[in-house]
Amino acid sequence: MFDKLLEQVRGESPQRIAVAAAHDKRVLEAVFNAKERGVGIPILVGKEDKIRQYTDELGIDLQDTTVIDEPNHMQAALYASNMVRQGEADLLMKGILHTAEIMRAVLNREKGLRQGNVISHTAILEIEGLDRLLFVTDAGMVIDPSLDQKIEIILNASIIAKALGIEMPKVAVLSALEIVNPNMPSSLDGSTLTQMNRRGQIEGCIVDGPLALDTAVSVERASHKDVKGSEVAGVADILLVPNIETGNAIYKAATTFANFRSAGVILGAKVPIILPSRADTAESKFLSIVVASRVATYLAEQREKNKR
Amino acid sequence: MFDKLLEQVRGESPQRIAVAAAHDKRVLEAVFNAKERGVGIPILVGKEDKIRQYTDELGIDLQDTTVIDEPNHMQAALYASNMVRQGEADLLMKGILHTAEIMRAVLNREKGLRQGNVISHTAILEIEGLDRLLFVTDAGMVIDPSLDQKIEIILNASIIAKALGIEMPKVAVLSALEIVNPNMPSSLDGSTLTQMNRRGQIEGCIVDGPLALDTAVSVERASHKDVKGSEVAGVADILLVPNIETGNAIYKAATTFANFRSAGVILGAKVPIILPSRADTAESKFLSIVVASRVATYLAEQREKNKR
Repeated sequence: MFDKLLEQVRGESPQRIAVAAAHDKRVLEAVFNAKERGVGIPILVGKEDKIRQYTDELGIDLQDTTVIDEPNHMQAALYASNMVRQGEADLLMKGILHTAEIMRAVLNREKGLRQGNVISHTAILEIEGLDRLLFVTDAGMVIDPSLDQKIEIILNASIIAKALGIEMPKVAVLSALEIVNPNMPSSLDGSTLTQMNRRGQIEGCIVDGPLALDTAVSVERASHKDVKGSEVAGVADILLVPNIETGNAIYKAATTFANFRSAGVILGAKVPIILPSRADTAESKFLSIVVASRVATYLAEQREKNKR
Repeated sequence: MFDKLLEQVRGESPQRIAVAAAHDKRVLEAVFNAKERGVGIPILVGKEDKIRQYTDELGIDLQDTTVIDEPNHMQAALYASNMVRQGEADLLMKGILHTAEIMRAVLNREKGLRQGNVISHTAILEIEGLDRLLFVTDAGMVIDPSLDQKIEIILNASIIAKALGIEMPKVAVLSALEIVNPNMPSSLDGSTLTQMNRRGQIEGCIVDGPLALDTAVSVERASHKDVKGSEVAGVADILLVPNIETGNAIYKAATTFANFRSAGVILGAKVPIILPSRADTAESKFLSIVVASRVATYLAEQREKNKR
């Protein structure tokens, strides 16, 4: 399913990607893979000597690529973020620096990309045997979201799902069971968010919970457990997890236990942010670029539509 | 690795299993599979007519099996629990009734099995490509454990790991990262539990955290992320999860995404309790019996040792 997405993105204008602290081999491999396939135009901000050394080693030609020498990580992050802010780049990508550093740049008043929304992470998983991509959120940014934050996290993930062709994403509010247990807050939030969705307080998606992971994604499991009154059980696109540990564990289980392909994108700032984990493979970093590019194009299309 | 365990358990005395509300096909299939292999002796408490109907359908001979007709679920749970308490059975198993019902019987003052400890669930996963069984706790009983409860949960899981031949289990305190983030309580508990272990306040295992799932189980991932000062990173046996949602998600990801074999056992009461989920396969329920039997034998051996 990532392959189908890649085909689509190859037909669209390549996005200019400002890479903060770009002096990392896997990151360079990923962005030049994107360049080669016509998906992205890398703009490298970081230690120029290391960038030149690694690209040499990887056999990458830097001829027509902008390289900005900024050895300081925080300065590189601010520079890259400011480029996006000024309209000189379309996407921001994390290189070898810490998440906290790039996020500090994103949230910077003068050079940053904040726009007042919750900034959240969505992991996209290609599970073997599943007929669709699975979106898991928040698996990497918001630690212990409040109910208000959960709503915005759902909306952020829904934008990504819509950009990837799912018109009305089905959101499962994840818990450890399918019935309400007054002692399990995640199951209470499941009910609340479901009802808010039914009342029109959360729009553009179908929300239902509480659901456990198996009954959310597997029709067979959902029917065996006889889950009642759910439009999402078995067919969920998005899993809203109650806390970062649950999201992280699902993401890591899929990639470590089973080697499934994955991507991750941060949404809620002015543009999508590509913020891979250090341990992610070059392929996963590349797929994150592909998803972020599609989302950026989708958001531009939406802006055009709203203008008319 | 479950197969190796099964071989060992087949060489030991079969355990008498009191099954509460035994009128369920998958449960009957699992306990008579255990009987056939010499692992268990089923004692069936439940709706006798249904038990006879299902065993007929499954081609099971009830000739030398005790069947106690008790159609009421709560009464069946109390009866089965009391049998264990009186020494007439060695293990308690959940049939078609609700977890809350059987746990109410377990906690009953007159007929129950409480002994003052934290009662917790440990899932045992056979992950393809992993050289060992993985123990995940608590994936089904304690919702949001306190630090005190986490210690007892570690000790319960350690008993199971020891019963399965791991002399000094390595416990990873799971979080979403490997460094301490003051805003992420699971990472703080990771540090605290590690230090308590180093000070001798948690004995019989090696505790280390915080660790994410991938760096806990994969040597390659741990080395790529350059996790410092950990004896557990990459080689964890037990994953202590911060909350039930995380444990449940790991268990469900392993069984739903990848179809890995699994078992689950409740420890902390007078005897191990076999408490499968309704959606568990007959094989998973059977493997839970195998694990619980090994643990019961191990605990009996330990009691013998302590007497001498």
